[in-house]
Amino acid sequence: MPRYALKIEYHGQPFRGWQRQSDQPSVQQTLEEALHRIDPDAPPVFAAGRTDTGVHALGQVSHCDLARAWTPFRLMEALNAHLRPHPVAVVAAAQVGDDFHARFAAIERRYLFRLVSRRAPVTHDAGLVWQVRGALDPAVMRAAAKHLLGRHDFTTFRAAMCQAKSPVKTLDRLDIDAVSYPGGGTELRLTFAARSFLHNQVRSIVGTLERVGAGAWTPDEVRAALQARDRTACGPVCPPQGLYLTHVRYPRDPFGV
Amino acid sequence: MPRYALKIEYHGQPFRGWQRQSDQPSVQQTLEEALHRIDPDAPPVFAAGRTDTGVHALGQVSHCDLARAWTPFRLMEALNAHLRPHPVAVVAAAQVGDDFHARFAAIERRYLFRLVSRRAPVTHDAGLVWQVRGALDPAVMRAAAKHLLGRHDFTTFRAAMCQAKSPVKTLDRLDIDAVSYPGGGTELRLTFAARSFLHNQVRSIVGTLERVGAGAWTPDEVRAALQARDRTACGPVCPPQGLYLTHVRYPRDPFGV
Repeated sequence: MPRYALKIEYHGQPFRGWQRQSDQPSVQQTLEEALHRIDPDAPPVFAAGRTDTGVHALGQVSHCDLARAWTPFRLMEALNAHLRPHPVAVVAAAQVGDDFHARFAAIERRYLFRLVSRRAPVTHDAGLVWQVRGALDPAVMRAAAKHLLGRHDFTTFRAAMCQAKSPVKTLDRLDIDAVSYPGGGTELRLTFAARSFLHNQVRSIVGTLERVGAGAWTPDEVRAALQARDRTACGPVCPPQGLYLTHVRYPRDPFGV
Repeated sequence: MPRYALKIEYHGQPFRGWQRQSDQPSVQQTLEEALHRIDPDAPPVFAAGRTDTGVHALGQVSHCDLARAWTPFRLMEALNAHLRPHPVAVVAAAQVGDDFHARFAAIERRYLFRLVSRRAPVTHDAGLVWQVRGALDPAVMRAAAKHLLGRHDFTTFRAAMCQAKSPVKTLDRLDIDAVSYPGGGTELRLTFAARSFLHNQVRSIVGTLERVGAGAWTPDEVRAALQARDRTACGPVCPPQGLYLTHVRYPRDPFGV
């Protein structure tokens, strides 16, 4: 069976996360139902990141095996036709070898977190950002973020239900860009990159860094929390709607030019 | 009665436009209901631009008269509390003189139109952009736009129901910026500025320019359509969801620093 890699964009709001559930809508089920319209026997799909309820994707990568060969463009068009009206879109498709695995072959995941600080409620971006009312100082947040870069035991920033074998991960990038937000206020765009992440790691870090930006925590307290290796030392876990899986990297880009 | 200018942001989707209707939700009614919660006798409000069904605002300006004086910050907070859960927010407030009139004192309105060209359906921006599937050439659109700049009889680009006394308007700015759109494709951001606009003028122009970008019209045909001064010479009027009233200018900025 020919194998295809799919780059997928979705709005997380209507879904109980990526992974198929028996009784709740999921992105995986939505995609598989579209696949079954073009290939009733298609086996389950795999994805690079099993995003949580309400988390968005701009560049999720999935793979599927199909009974017959498709040109990538026609496969993308057919799936998008059957995905309507769900807010899930295939933005790129490519035929790949049998050794390609969306999850196990990935060497880097990148996430964006959109955190908006302003008094007035957001209107157009409701469900697409996490809004806080108070001012945030990005400089102290960057100072705190530096303590989290590199290889650490991230037990503090890991959900109790996390199934990863080890809490040791290497955070390769944590950038915080501040841009002015339309209508007043500031948007902080936090970019995370790592080979892989623990469950709730990004949201645990963002929730903690927000406390730093608001002046409630110091950067040193973040370092101490990391060193405690204790889930109870973590700051509040932030809500999911500001989080986007933006990019998954492989040894060779399956969608490469 | 002290008078206040309000800068307002809203998502156009749930509203039948700005203006109050007897039997349909409007932004004006939503704002007036919030005002009546803090001042039951507040008279009707006025706005700089009476946006149509589905059209958004980032910087609509309105004015209202209230029985008692408010600090601008407390007025903004009180109104935002009562505007929930509607996607309407007061992003700035200022006390102004009795001679300030949101509509009649305005000397410039600016609109942004977001036009996305890509094959795969948009997910996060559904209702926030106009999407077309085909490629667009911004260079020929800019060439066509040049013919529309300046003072003209815009009868061709005016809705039949337009109530303006004269079809002669001066279009001061029509810029077209092309930016890459996340997940592939291109977003064209069209910026319009004029003292005032005719009914459906922006959407008539955008719909016509899209035909130019797609190769169906030439820039010269746009000039000929303008010179025809005939509504039937207009291209298709584009849908409203890509349109944003972004800024209203007054001789002195009421929200100025």
